[in-house]
Amino acid sequence: MSFATLWESLLPIGRDPVTGGYRRYSWTTADMNCRDWFTATAAERGLAVQPDRDGNLWAWWVAGHTDWPTDDRAVVTGSHLDSVPDGGAFDGPLGVVSAFAAIDMLRDRGFTPARPVAVAAFTEEEGARFGVACLGSRLLTGVIAPEVARDLRDTEGVSLAEAMAAAGAVPDRLGPDDELLSRVGSFIELHIEQGRQLAAQDAVIGIADGIWPHGRWRLDFHGRGDHAGTTALVDRRDPVLSFAATVLAAREVAARHQALTTFGKVAVQPGGVNAIPSAVVAWLDARAPDEQTLNTVVAEIRAAAQRATRDHGVTVTTACESFSPRVELDPDLQARLSSVLARNMIRAPLVATGAGHDAGVLAARVPSAMLFVRNPSGVSHAPSEVAEIADCETGVAALAAVLEELASE
Amino acid sequence: MSFATLWESLLPIGRDPVTGGYRRYSWTTADMNCRDWFTATAAERGLAVQPDRDGNLWAWWVAGHTDWPTDDRAVVTGSHLDSVPDGGAFDGPLGVVSAFAAIDMLRDRGFTPARPVAVAAFTEEEGARFGVACLGSRLLTGVIAPEVARDLRDTEGVSLAEAMAAAGAVPDRLGPDDELLSRVGSFIELHIEQGRQLAAQDAVIGIADGIWPHGRWRLDFHGRGDHAGTTALVDRRDPVLSFAATVLAAREVAARHQALTTFGKVAVQPGGVNAIPSAVVAWLDARAPDEQTLNTVVAEIRAAAQRATRDHGVTVTTACESFSPRVELDPDLQARLSSVLARNMIRAPLVATGAGHDAGVLAARVPSAMLFVRNPSGVSHAPSEVAEIADCETGVAALAAVLEELASE
Repeated sequence: MSFATLWESLLPIGRDPVTGGYRRYSWTTADMNCRDWFTATAAERGLAVQPDRDGNLWAWWVAGHTDWPTDDRAVVTGSHLDSVPDGGAFDGPLGVVSAFAAIDMLRDRGFTPARPVAVAAFTEEEGARFGVACLGSRLLTGVIAPEVARDLRDTEGVSLAEAMAAAGAVPDRLGPDDELLSRVGSFIELHIEQGRQLAAQDAVIGIADGIWPHGRWRLDFHGRGDHAGTTALVDRRDPVLSFAATVLAAREVAARHQALTTFGKVAVQPGGVNAIPSAVVAWLDARAPDEQTLNTVVAEIRAAAQRATRDHGVTVTTACESFSPRVELDPDLQARLSSVLARNMIRAPLVATGAGHDAGVLAARVPSAMLFVRNPSGVSHAPSEVAEIADCETGVAALAAVLEELASE
Repeated sequence: MSFATLWESLLPIGRDPVTGGYRRYSWTTADMNCRDWFTATAAERGLAVQPDRDGNLWAWWVAGHTDWPTDDRAVVTGSHLDSVPDGGAFDGPLGVVSAFAAIDMLRDRGFTPARPVAVAAFTEEEGARFGVACLGSRLLTGVIAPEVARDLRDTEGVSLAEAMAAAGAVPDRLGPDDELLSRVGSFIELHIEQGRQLAAQDAVIGIADGIWPHGRWRLDFHGRGDHAGTTALVDRRDPVLSFAATVLAAREVAARHQALTTFGKVAVQPGGVNAIPSAVVAWLDARAPDEQTLNTVVAEIRAAAQRATRDHGVTVTTACESFSPRVELDPDLQARLSSVLARNMIRAPLVATGAGHDAGVLAARVPSAMLFVRNPSGVSHAPSEVAEIADCETGVAALAAVLEELASE
């Protein structure tokens, strides 16, 4: 089946009719429909689907193996199907659709793998519903404890355990699966690029050279609620002013250190038009090429927030909600990808990324690598995120070449 | 009954057990409980309660009038029972409780009014649920059309008509009531001061000399949603930066013009921690001593918002959601209040106010005046809003003296 046909079969699921963005949050109806699509797509190809204990889906192509030797490590590729609020179509799904399309391409060529090949779709990569990014791969590799994960709650107070049970899944079995991981020889994640490094170099495909360290910090600005129409400016303790000054300071700090900072989620409380707010809660997303720079950036923003509160009788507290150290992807695997793509006449420069990925989590346990597909505008996590279909087809060809290389030995 | 006892009977209704603030939004259970309290309090005093067609409550004291002459214009006092989110106990309810307590005081003295006296409680003064302040008095005086009001919606999409129907009220009858207004000879609203002018002058009671012009403007900052981890700073169109610069500019503009500006309600969309927002919607509350100054302040803030968007590839649109011109309260009534309070040895300086009130709406149709009770901290629209009980008792005495003066003729 062509990439375009397969791609279009997934597009309508979970798309908002007004914004055109996706709201495929884990264990919701939209997510279950994505899972059904995965199962049906694998079944059409005769691939056996096995959900693991953490809700990640695996579709196995075990050609010619009637007795599958357990020491025959599999070549796994895939990504995720969930989205951020109003996310684009490509972030995640491109890797899953390309995996199936690459298998179709290899079969059309008559290729028979000497090792098992699998397509994987990981759960809650975005952390949009339960707040922890790469939740499925973190559970699988034991980075997050199952009892902690089960009690993660969405904004409506529903726990992961409750959401899974409501979707007919089994939360009791969540946890690491060393036996499954031991069967994986390498993991390749194909992903849309989420910046414009490839576009700037006029390249269609890139190879990740590592993932920036990044984290989330929650800033709580506390002032004093008051009447907007009668409280003199000098008597105010307005946390919005301190927040605003912190936003501008963070941008300046980020620019100075070649880092990235974002305030994407902000709650102004209690939210009456004619009331000075009592508090602003703002989440800082910060990323930098190395951990020392990231620590400096966050420290400077915290200091700026302190300064921004002092003149206004406001207080601020900061808490780190998550931190992901820099991930170095497997250098040997990276070199093999470079050489196989060069043989196939596909230019693939190395690109850095500030985004977390399941490949970054799995890299701690399994040799992992990433392929990026050019994103002309660089837009991601938004409805207008897009890659050219021709570029996606080149991505499928690149992935097929890589799978053929790794699964031949 | 003492003021304190009556006051305490209302305090528990609609109070949040965590913040101690009130969420008495119109036509909710908390509001219906306040209405039941009003009806029971009136009934204990033998006052006949009549809801008007707009949901405002009126409790009539018509002593000695077996045949009530329609040209005998009533003396009406009161305020409102609804609150902003996490509002204080005093803003509104103090005027209603003081009205009943003043009637008790007059009766204890053996006073028999020569004119009808009424206690009124107006609906949705804060505009917290349906977005239009003084909704009940605006409907009564015909300032807002009933078909517009019926279709106002709360944040959950429930219309005023639906909310009224769900509470057992009749939305079909909403609209102006000239016959009722023609029966009102004067309206006196007692209210907690929402600033510190009285405290600064060491006075317990004040008389309003007018209400500042004020309004609400909605600012829509539109940028482009994007991935927080991969989008280079120069490629971003982040509306939070433009909003932050506008907040700081508004404060500077307000200080320069001795005006008041507040951003109390802000929505950052779509609200993912790892996504650059696509839009920020922010509501500006602005007030100034006169309309020319207010127009200048808003124009300067709009210009600052335009400047703040230009460098970031963001656009901003501004829409005025409500505007209340300066209200001059009735000068004759003001003079009578000053003289009766002076005779009663209650010093009552004139104070300006930036807050809108039902008295300001009714002033267009009925001679209206306001009494303020000292607020030591100036805090209002917050759980810590407070007036001393002794000051409230002085307020009751002042109101009783005023009612006696006006209802004697």
